[in-house]
Amino acid sequence: MSHNTFGHLFRVTTWGESHGRALGCVVDGCPPGLKLDEAYVQAFLDKRKPGTSRFVTQRKEPDQVKILSGVFEDDRTDGQVTTGTPISMMIENVDQRSKDYSEIRDRYRPGHADYAYDQKYGVRDYRGGGRSSARETAARVAAGAVARRVLGDDILIRGAVVQIGPHAIDREAWDWDETAKNPFWCPDATAAARWEDFLDETRKAGSSAGAVIEVQASGVPAGWGAPVYGKLDAELAGAMMSINAAKGVEIGAGFAAAAFSGEQNADEMRMGNEGVRFLSNNNGGVAGGISTGQDVVVRIAIKPTSSILTATQSVTRTGEEVDVRTKGRHDPCVGIRGVPVAEAMLACVLADAKLRHRGQVG
Amino acid sequence: MSHNTFGHLFRVTTWGESHGRALGCVVDGCPPGLKLDEAYVQAFLDKRKPGTSRFVTQRKEPDQVKILSGVFEDDRTDGQVTTGTPISMMIENVDQRSKDYSEIRDRYRPGHADYAYDQKYGVRDYRGGGRSSARETAARVAAGAVARRVLGDDILIRGAVVQIGPHAIDREAWDWDETAKNPFWCPDATAAARWEDFLDETRKAGSSAGAVIEVQASGVPAGWGAPVYGKLDAELAGAMMSINAAKGVEIGAGFAAAAFSGEQNADEMRMGNEGVRFLSNNNGGVAGGISTGQDVVVRIAIKPTSSILTATQSVTRTGEEVDVRTKGRHDPCVGIRGVPVAEAMLACVLADAKLRHRGQVG
Amino acid sequence: MSHNTFGHLFRVTTWGESHGRALGCVVDGCPPGLKLDEAYVQAFLDKRKPGTSRFVTQRKEPDQVKILSGVFEDDRTDGQVTTGTPISMMIENVDQRSKDYSEIRDRYRPGHADYAYDQKYGVRDYRGGGRSSARETAARVAAGAVARRVLGDDILIRGAVVQIGPHAIDREAWDWDETAKNPFWCPDATAAARWEDFLDETRKAGSSAGAVIEVQASGVPAGWGAPVYGKLDAELAGAMMSINAAKGVEIGAGFAAAAFSGEQNADEMRMGNEGVRFLSNNNGGVAGGISTGQDVVVRIAIKPTSSILTATQSVTRTGEEVDVRTKGRHDPCVGIRGVPVAEAMLACVLADAKLRHRGQVG
Amino acid sequence: MSHNTFGHLFRVTTWGESHGRALGCVVDGCPPGLKLDEAYVQAFLDKRKPGTSRFVTQRKEPDQVKILSGVFEDDRTDGQVTTGTPISMMIENVDQRSKDYSEIRDRYRPGHADYAYDQKYGVRDYRGGGRSSARETAARVAAGAVARRVLGDDILIRGAVVQIGPHAIDREAWDWDETAKNPFWCPDATAAARWEDFLDETRKAGSSAGAVIEVQASGVPAGWGAPVYGKLDAELAGAMMSINAAKGVEIGAGFAAAAFSGEQNADEMRMGNEGVRFLSNNNGGVAGGISTGQDVVVRIAIKPTSSILTATQSVTRTGEEVDVRTKGRHDPCVGIRGVPVAEAMLACVLADAKLRHRGQVG
Repeated sequence: MSHNTFGHLFRVTTWGESHGRALGCVVDGCPPGLKLDEAYVQAFLDKRKPGTSRFVTQRKEPDQVKILSGVFEDDRTDGQVTTGTPISMMIENVDQRSKDYSEIRDRYRPGHADYAYDQKYGVRDYRGGGRSSARETAARVAAGAVARRVLGDDILIRGAVVQIGPHAIDREAWDWDETAKNPFWCPDATAAARWEDFLDETRKAGSSAGAVIEVQASGVPAGWGAPVYGKLDAELAGAMMSINAAKGVEIGAGFAAAAFSGEQNADEMRMGNEGVRFLSNNNGGVAGGISTGQDVVVRIAIKPTSSILTATQSVTRTGEEVDVRTKGRHDPCVGIRGVPVAEAMLACVLADAKLRHRGQVG
Repeated sequence: MSHNTFGHLFRVTTWGESHGRALGCVVDGCPPGLKLDEAYVQAFLDKRKPGTSRFVTQRKEPDQVKILSGVFEDDRTDGQVTTGTPISMMIENVDQRSKDYSEIRDRYRPGHADYAYDQKYGVRDYRGGGRSSARETAARVAAGAVARRVLGDDILIRGAVVQIGPHAIDREAWDWDETAKNPFWCPDATAAARWEDFLDETRKAGSSAGAVIEVQASGVPAGWGAPVYGKLDAELAGAMMSINAAKGVEIGAGFAAAAFSGEQNADEMRMGNEGVRFLSNNNGGVAGGISTGQDVVVRIAIKPTSSILTATQSVTRTGEEVDVRTKGRHDPCVGIRGVPVAEAMLACVLADAKLRHRGQVG
Repeated sequence: MSHNTFGHLFRVTTWGESHGRALGCVVDGCPPGLKLDEAYVQAFLDKRKPGTSRFVTQRKEPDQVKILSGVFEDDRTDGQVTTGTPISMMIENVDQRSKDYSEIRDRYRPGHADYAYDQKYGVRDYRGGGRSSARETAARVAAGAVARRVLGDDILIRGAVVQIGPHAIDREAWDWDETAKNPFWCPDATAAARWEDFLDETRKAGSSAGAVIEVQASGVPAGWGAPVYGKLDAELAGAMMSINAAKGVEIGAGFAAAAFSGEQNADEMRMGNEGVRFLSNNNGGVAGGISTGQDVVVRIAIKPTSSILTATQSVTRTGEEVDVRTKGRHDPCVGIRGVPVAEAMLACVLADAKLRHRGQVG
Repeated sequence: MSHNTFGHLFRVTTWGESHGRALGCVVDGCPPGLKLDEAYVQAFLDKRKPGTSRFVTQRKEPDQVKILSGVFEDDRTDGQVTTGTPISMMIENVDQRSKDYSEIRDRYRPGHADYAYDQKYGVRDYRGGGRSSARETAARVAAGAVARRVLGDDILIRGAVVQIGPHAIDREAWDWDETAKNPFWCPDATAAARWEDFLDETRKAGSSAGAVIEVQASGVPAGWGAPVYGKLDAELAGAMMSINAAKGVEIGAGFAAAAFSGEQNADEMRMGNEGVRFLSNNNGGVAGGISTGQDVVVRIAIKPTSSILTATQSVTRTGEEVDVRTKGRHDPCVGIRGVPVAEAMLACVLADAKLRHRGQVG
């Protein structure tokens, strides 16, 4: 993790501001010979796209991806495939309404990066938050699509929202199929109905809500990860905390494990038909920083969208006290659109771990 | 974060196994001219040293540090100072009782890295967990001492245990002075008394307990951190999750923020005598990945020590089902000795952020 | 140096193939507040542009750069300035004649990367050499323009060709003004005239010629560089050797120093009006990997263009023996257009060294 | 290459000063299960050890290596083997005569790093050059021994001195067996005899001589290396230029290639019994930054030892003009002992390339 690049052998560099010409990424280190075309990447971007329901921002961005390099097709290849060279992808911005932001040019929006960026850089593109906007995450999703190709079909990566505001799902009711049936990626139909009401109220009140996202990877073999500072869970924590509005990350039982006894927490083992079988997964698929072969389970706390219509106290660049109301077009609960982003980060970290593992041990 | 090195300009590489000859670190990128001698580093190691109370492991390790390079003293320097070259520090292991471990040579201890390491490497130093042992964290503490010199006296780094097992402190009762008065780094005298009873029971039952650690840094100026993948909070999350037994990391309000409304969560701003004054610190001193000038606040969930006397079900290398009881000498609550380690990681991440900031913006 | 990224704090990632849609770079870590617009970058690209004389390739590429991110302008900035966020630049390919290459689809051109790439990747974009084409260097030149802004006006970076084929310049006749008066960046008018004849013959013979480039930086303060593996000269050597067709790099006296005696080689020092004055510069401005304040002097050996009309013996993908004649449009002496590229690499390495120095020592 | 670490997956961090307590390295990323013990590493250190003939420094350093971590032995392993964890190696300094250096405490020795280090750091360990001393290369040799294990027995790495002062060998007379029969690693018996006389004169005159080293690797498969900034030759150039006193690096034909025509330079190909056969090796085993399967051939120009008895003009820290004569114990031709160092760097770069290749393409 370094400035705008993450990963070691599978490396992703992203660029672009919310209201600039375009945004994009360069994916470096993707192995050759993997199928990759724009339609494939586009499908993942469409999951994250704004404007798909009343619970997300109404900004109209088609988020159409162009692959500019790193792929090739001729009559010997199986469609368009990666060549091992850097894959550059670009998404042009279309629906910038920069005027919406002239009002906050000199005002620091509470909860946003405005003040911190200004203190650091002294100059900033304030339109829509510039580089600190969650719009940057479109590039992550594109990179994540490539990462999934690296992982192959044996590894299944899925995500869900498990809490919105104070309302958590009933984990017993978890049904992955439900996530596609509501606008929240919610695996519990009852919770989804409650969230609909809750978020309608939130929107009407000019407020916003936080969320907890859970992403899982199945099919990860034992042995990935690189102790002690490239631990799989350390890399996941860094990657997830880099997502906009993330304030917490936990693996497996996470914070709940602090209250467990040693016996409760132990993931006991027995022999199964296909080798070792764990009787629980409090470790979330990672022990000592290395995958155990169980599902990798990560949860991320997403704070409420900082852009709200309600007035909050703030100051200007020149030190005047003001009230700030953020108009623009915003997600009432930015956690919802965070699901494909968190999936993408999980895919990227795992793809990197897979390639490094081959190099380290092979 | 990469294998056994972390940091960008202030880089720490650690090495060593629990029962090897020695362990240590190389701190690279420390600026020249800072006072540094063994007595200074030793004071931090003594905070983490085993055997200081009945609530931590009884292994007797003096943890005496030697500085092997990177410092110099002559009649022109102010005592022994750093030279800008790599600082190599070594701690010799003294009280290895490797025989304690012959029994678990072929048995995978549940909750430990045994199985995962074996799946990855196929060969391992099983004595005391080898490289996956928390003994490695002594090297982090030594590096953290150097990092504090880089940060200087204006930045105050402190840590506390805020929960052991299910028993959390009362935050209203927080008194930093208390942390030095009990064997738990507990800032709440009442909670400390309760933990004493609780851990005595835990030990007697042959069990172990989890904990939550909180570390804070005061005096960090606004502007440190490097969006978007070198975010200060992303680096903190990665660093903290790399600590042995860590299962969760949160910044500021953390997971609680998921239940907040936008207004509750907004850290409103007014003008104070010395510039901007925040009315709350839900962001934990970081916005958009950049420090805000507020206290940096991080909490870490530590799972219960996996080494317990109670029998747990497991398997051997060759696939036999067995029961495992871990004798050896272990911390009933490894979170306690995690406090100086978490402080050290916070210091290292901030020292790196400080140096990078100078380079990025200067 | 790692895959397609180089630099530590000032980091450049390039992407693109010779006959793909576009090529470009992401410059990450550029400090904020520096003036930067397309016209400024374009001026450097125009120096490298193909088709400017009969001694370079006749491919017609306008090499028009677009800056897609990382800059901002409003009424408070001094024109368009950098914001500290990643600067993405793109150059669209226009004059691809990919059909020229169908013939060499299955033939390995001697001296080219064809065989090695195929052995590594098993799939490749063979059109114009794909990623291994010197066309990639346009992106380096764009990055170098940014690097010059980081260095500021006090540091002067210049390059020249000092040998073409067996014909070296007379160093006594060196006149920087001459480099703009001939199509070879030659600082010696007499040598330039000789080269004109020599290269006309070379072209007519369907052959090609090698060259030696020299680049210099004046105004570099003493103290930049980071021993021992980030030595300024080590970084320069790596950067220069990464230029297409480079086969050698030397600093200061370089290989000639091997024949010197210790006294001849010593760069003796006396006191001058502005501090230490060196009596010679055999070290090429770098001692122990750190700049001395003298001019930084680097020379690079460029092999003859591998694409020649003369038949050379080769083999096909499937193991047939064939003769290869490379038609296409090629530089008879690729070293000529290498001058702005080598200048750019020098600028990038120095910009990175400047930023790191601030961070290391500050 | 970054400060005191080099490599990507196979990473080497070195530490230590010439007259400090000890020096050493941490080798991170070595795969598990490779045989490694102190006797094996020691054999390589003995090749570089001082005091072995009158043509090298008379400092008496046994250079005894200790392996402190990263290896393990029990009745299931084949002797002592690597475990995949960091290998820490240490060499204690024994024969420091620091008093020899008190005289140059305030004087900058021409050609040395004294002035540059002082300008950068403002404080330095001047004894024997401190960190800038070639004594650091002992740690590289230890790391190189590990790298050879990673490469395995199929890859043969060898080095020779091919020029001392103005006297080059006759390449036609090259006989690898000769390198073990003279104190110069000279592959040409006639040249070795001439060098003996030449260096005796040089020593008597209180002077020193430069040299050119050539190292070769046979058995490297085609496909290693990572374009475009992790090119195998770019990494070699950086690694070799980081060796003390190196002023030039060339691959294959190197600078001579600048005078070749395209046809002369082309490494033509035919089919041989075991696949493609090259008719020449001007590329030095690397094309487009990727290995071709031919021998990798690198030459390094080493300047004359800067420490000479002859007086040279210099200045002091406080700006007085002085004459400097360097007494101490020095190599009259530091290039000789550079051979095992250059071999070690070649081994390390190739080991890293091998591991990365497995990760990139596998």
